[in-house]
Amino acid sequence: MANSKYEYVKREFESDRSLPASNWIVVRIDGCHFHRFSETHDFEKPNDESALRLMNACATSMLEKFRDMVFAYGVSDEYSFVFREGTEFYQRRESKILSLCVSFFTSVYVMKWKDFFPSKELKEPPYFDGRVVCYPNLKTIRDYMAWRQVDCHINNQYNTCFWMLVKSGRTEKEAQQTLKGTFSKDKNELLLQQFQINYDDEPAIFRKGSCVYRAKVETKVKSDDHGNPITRTQSVTTVANVDIIGPQFWEKHQDILHEEK
Amino acid sequence: MANSKYEYVKREFESDRSLPASNWIVVRIDGCHFHRFSETHDFEKPNDESALRLMNACATSMLEKFRDMVFAYGVSDEYSFVFREGTEFYQRRESKILSLCVSFFTSVYVMKWKDFFPSKELKEPPYFDGRVVCYPNLKTIRDYMAWRQVDCHINNQYNTCFWMLVKSGRTEKEAQQTLKGTFSKDKNELLLQQFQINYDDEPAIFRKGSCVYRAKVETKVKSDDHGNPITRTQSVTTVANVDIIGPQFWEKHQDILHEEK
Amino acid sequence: MANSKYEYVKREFESDRSLPASNWIVVRIDGCHFHRFSETHDFEKPNDESALRLMNACATSMLEKFRDMVFAYGVSDEYSFVFREGTEFYQRRESKILSLCVSFFTSVYVMKWKDFFPSKELKEPPYFDGRVVCYPNLKTIRDYMAWRQVDCHINNQYNTCFWMLVKSGRTEKEAQQTLKGTFSKDKNELLLQQFQINYDDEPAIFRKGSCVYRAKVETKVKSDDHGNPITRTQSVTTVANVDIIGPQFWEKHQDILHEEK
Amino acid sequence: MANSKYEYVKREFESDRSLPASNWIVVRIDGCHFHRFSETHDFEKPNDESALRLMNACATSMLEKFRDMVFAYGVSDEYSFVFREGTEFYQRRESKILSLCVSFFTSVYVMKWKDFFPSKELKEPPYFDGRVVCYPNLKTIRDYMAWRQVDCHINNQYNTCFWMLVKSGRTEKEAQQTLKGTFSKDKNELLLQQFQINYDDEPAIFRKGSCVYRAKVETKVKSDDHGNPITRTQSVTTVANVDIIGPQFWEKHQDILHEEK
Repeated sequence: MANSKYEYVKREFESDRSLPASNWIVVRIDGCHFHRFSETHDFEKPNDESALRLMNACATSMLEKFRDMVFAYGVSDEYSFVFREGTEFYQRRESKILSLCVSFFTSVYVMKWKDFFPSKELKEPPYFDGRVVCYPNLKTIRDYMAWRQVDCHINNQYNTCFWMLVKSGRTEKEAQQTLKGTFSKDKNELLLQQFQINYDDEPAIFRKGSCVYRAKVETKVKSDDHGNPITRTQSVTTVANVDIIGPQFWEKHQDILHEEK
Repeated sequence: MANSKYEYVKREFESDRSLPASNWIVVRIDGCHFHRFSETHDFEKPNDESALRLMNACATSMLEKFRDMVFAYGVSDEYSFVFREGTEFYQRRESKILSLCVSFFTSVYVMKWKDFFPSKELKEPPYFDGRVVCYPNLKTIRDYMAWRQVDCHINNQYNTCFWMLVKSGRTEKEAQQTLKGTFSKDKNELLLQQFQINYDDEPAIFRKGSCVYRAKVETKVKSDDHGNPITRTQSVTTVANVDIIGPQFWEKHQDILHEEK
Repeated sequence: MANSKYEYVKREFESDRSLPASNWIVVRIDGCHFHRFSETHDFEKPNDESALRLMNACATSMLEKFRDMVFAYGVSDEYSFVFREGTEFYQRRESKILSLCVSFFTSVYVMKWKDFFPSKELKEPPYFDGRVVCYPNLKTIRDYMAWRQVDCHINNQYNTCFWMLVKSGRTEKEAQQTLKGTFSKDKNELLLQQFQINYDDEPAIFRKGSCVYRAKVETKVKSDDHGNPITRTQSVTTVANVDIIGPQFWEKHQDILHEEK
Repeated sequence: MANSKYEYVKREFESDRSLPASNWIVVRIDGCHFHRFSETHDFEKPNDESALRLMNACATSMLEKFRDMVFAYGVSDEYSFVFREGTEFYQRRESKILSLCVSFFTSVYVMKWKDFFPSKELKEPPYFDGRVVCYPNLKTIRDYMAWRQVDCHINNQYNTCFWMLVKSGRTEKEAQQTLKGTFSKDKNELLLQQFQINYDDEPAIFRKGSCVYRAKVETKVKSDDHGNPITRTQSVTTVANVDIIGPQFWEKHQDILHEEK
C-alpha cells in the first residue's frame, strides 16, 4: 500500500509534540461566543441552573470515559479537566489530548441538551475552544484550581449584583457605574441593603462552581447467612459544589491528587 | 477584580503558541474509534453514503462559518480543512484553531445526525481528534491534498475488494489473504472477473472523496426594464467528488489557493 | 552497556524539535554585553574596523565549515547566517543547529582575536547569544536581509552623527537631544554642515554592513600546449559591502538563493 | 527610527519560547567531533587529565559568571549545567539560555587552552553543541545527574580496559572483541589479572567525573581586640570528584538543590 510520492508531506511537516512527563495535565474548555449563545437560548441571568447542570453532566461523562482524568472543575461555560501526573494517555501527545477532550465534551453537550432543556430547541451549534497547560507539582496544580474558584467567586458576586440592579430598573450602564471600584464587602452590603439578599445564601453551585471526581462509596451488595450486609467499595463519579481553595477537601480526598511514586 | 495570589499559574505556565506566518494551515480531523462507532450504528460496508453525506454537511457548515477556510477534503471519517496562507484567524494560535475546529465540527455532526439517519438513534457520542500542520507554499499544500486523495483511492479500492469477498462468503481472514501483495490492477481485475464490477463505475464520492469550496455562481436577481436578466455573482459553498491530484481542478478554481501578495 | 534505572530521564524529558521543512533557516548571533566589551577593549567609536573585520573573518570560517550555509550578513556585533531551504543539516534539529553555530563562531572569534588585535589582549571572554528563525519563501528571506540592512543604515547614520557631536565637545546627553526627532536627511545635513562629512563617502563596511557568500571564480590552473590558459571554476568565499535591499545583487548572484526543486 | 516596511519579518516569524516555570533547567554541552579533535591534539587515552581540568576550569567560570547556575557535572567532553528551579534568567527563554551558555563555555575553553596545554597550539576551533532539558522536581533532577554519573562509570571502565589492551599490543578490533558482552565485574577482573590494576584505585576524576558547586567556607577576615579570629562565610566555587548517585553528597550540601518556596 505504498503512496510514496506524496507521503513526504506527512514525514517532513507533521510532528507530534508530547507534553513533559511528571506534570499534571490540565485541559481547559471554554464556550465560544457563549454570550450570544446564552441569549439565543434565553439562559437565565446571572446563572442558568439547567445550563450549569448540563455542563456538569458533560464533565461527568468525561470522567466516566477517560480513566486518567482525576478531577474536573467547572464554572459558567468553562470546565477544567485534570489528568493524573504520570498519565500515558495517547503518549501525552498534546494535539490528541486537546482535540479529543474538546470533541467528546461537545458531543455530549449536544446529545444531552434535550435532557436539560426539553422544551428548547438547539438553534445553533454550541462549540468550545480549549487549551492544555502542564503543572509540575502538587502546589501548582492546587493553586490552578484555587485560581479558577477565586475567579468564580469574583465573577459571580459581581454578576449577582449587576443583574439585581438591572432587574430592579437600572440600565446596564448605570449598574456598571454603581459597581465600579467596589470591593467584595461593598457588594455584599449592596445585596443586603437594597435587595435583602445574603450572598452566602445563594446556591453553592453559583458561588463555588462544580467539582467532579470519583468518590469511593461502600455499597451493600448482598447479605451473608446471618443477615449481615456484605459491602463492596465502588468508585462513583460525583459532583460537589464545595470549597477547593482550603486544604479540607483535599485532605478528605487524598487519593484524587495522590502523587505517584 | 484582582485575584493576585493565584494568578501566577496563568502567567507562568500558560503559553500561546502561534503558527508561523505565510504558511497554509491544515486542520485534519479524524473519527475516534469510528470502527466501533460504525458497527454500533450499522454503517454499510465498505462505504455508508449517508455517513459520508453527513461528514460533507459538517464540512459545508465549517466553510460557511469560518471565512478564512478556503478548502476542505474528506474521505471516510476524516476531513482536512485548509486555512488561507495569510489568515489571522485567532492570531494563528494553534490551540484555539485546533480546538474550535474540532468542536464545531463535532457539534454539527451530532445536530445533523437525525437529518441523515432519521430512523437511527445516536447510541454513543461520536468524537474526533485533530492535528494542525503548516505548509509553506503552493507545491506542498497541493501535495498534501494529493496525498490524502491517493490514500482515499488505495483504501477504497482495497475495501471494495475486501467487502465483496466477504459478502460473497469468504471469511475476513480469507479476504485479507486473497488481497495480500496484490497491486492496483490485480484488484481491478479481481472485481471485474469475480464480481463483474468495473471499479471506475463505482460512485465518485467513494473513489474520489469529497471537496468543499466556495464557487462563484452567477445568479439572476431581477430583470431590467427590457426584460434582460440582471445577475449577481454569489459565492456558494459547493461539494464536488473530483480529482484534485492533477492540475485541472486547480486551474479552473484558481481563486481557492490564490497566493496573497 | 545498560544503565536502565536512570535512563528514563532522557526518554521522558528530552525532545528534539525539528524545524519545518522547505523553509530557509536563519541563525542570528548577537554579542552579549558588547557595549561593555567594546569599552573594555577600547573599540573605536562609532565603528571599529578591526572588530568588524574580525566578525567577517569568523563568518567566512562559518561558510567554509558548513556547506549548507549559503549566505551571511553582519553588522556591528551581530551576524545572520542563512541555511539553504532544503538543508538536512542535523536533520534540521533546532538546538543542534543553534548551539553549534554560536559555539563555532565564538571559538573562531577568540582564536583569531590576536590576528586583528595583535597588541590588545583579550581581557574577558567574548560571548554571543543566538536565535533561529524560519522563513518559508524567497520573498520573506529577502525581506529579512533587507530588514537587517535598513537597520544597519539607520543605526550607523545615527551613531556617526552622535559620535561626531561628542568628539566635537558635546556631552552624550546634548548629542542625544540634538538628534531627537531628526529624519535621515536632517542627519545628512548636520554631518555636511557641521563636519563637512558627506555620509555617502563613509566606508561601505560601515554603511552597508558585510555580506559573505560563495562566488564562482574562474582561475587559471595551467596552460595547454599552445600556451592558452586552462581555467577551472572555483567557489571562493567572498566578503562584500554592498546593497542587498534592491534586486541587483540577487540577480547577479542567482545561485545563492536558488530555490531547490 | 522606523523601518516599518520590513519589520514584519521579526513580528510575524520570530518567537521567544519560554521554558516552563518551576522546573530545574539543565543545559548539557557536548564536544562536536571531539574524537578527531582529541587526536589532532594528542590527548592521552583513555583520559587526558589536562583536557578534563580545562573542562572543569570552564565550568568553574560558568558558575562564577551565572549566579542562577547551582551545579554542574562533567565527564569527558560533556558538561551539564543546572539552573535553579525558579530562575528568571532571561525570562527562561530557551534560545537565549542555550546559546549564551554554549558560547561562554566555548569562549573560556579557547582562552584558557594555553594554561592547560602551554606547549600545544590549538590547531582547529573546538566547538560544542548543546541542548536544554527541564526537570519538574527534585527526584528527576537527582536522577538526571545519577544517569550521567552511571554513564561516566560504564564508559570509563570500558575505555580503561580497551586502552590497556591496545597499549599491551592488541589491535583495536581485538580489544573490542575481548570486551564484547562482558559485565562490570568481568572488566574489573580483567584489569586486575592482566594488568594488576585495581579499578577503584584509578583517579576519581576519571571514575566519578567532576562536580562544580558553590561551597560555603568560613574564612578568618581579621582578629578582634583579644586576638580572637573574626570569620566570614564565603561562597567558593569548588570542584569535587565524588559520588552523586547516593544521598550523602546531597545531604551534606542541601543548599544546592534547596527547593524554593
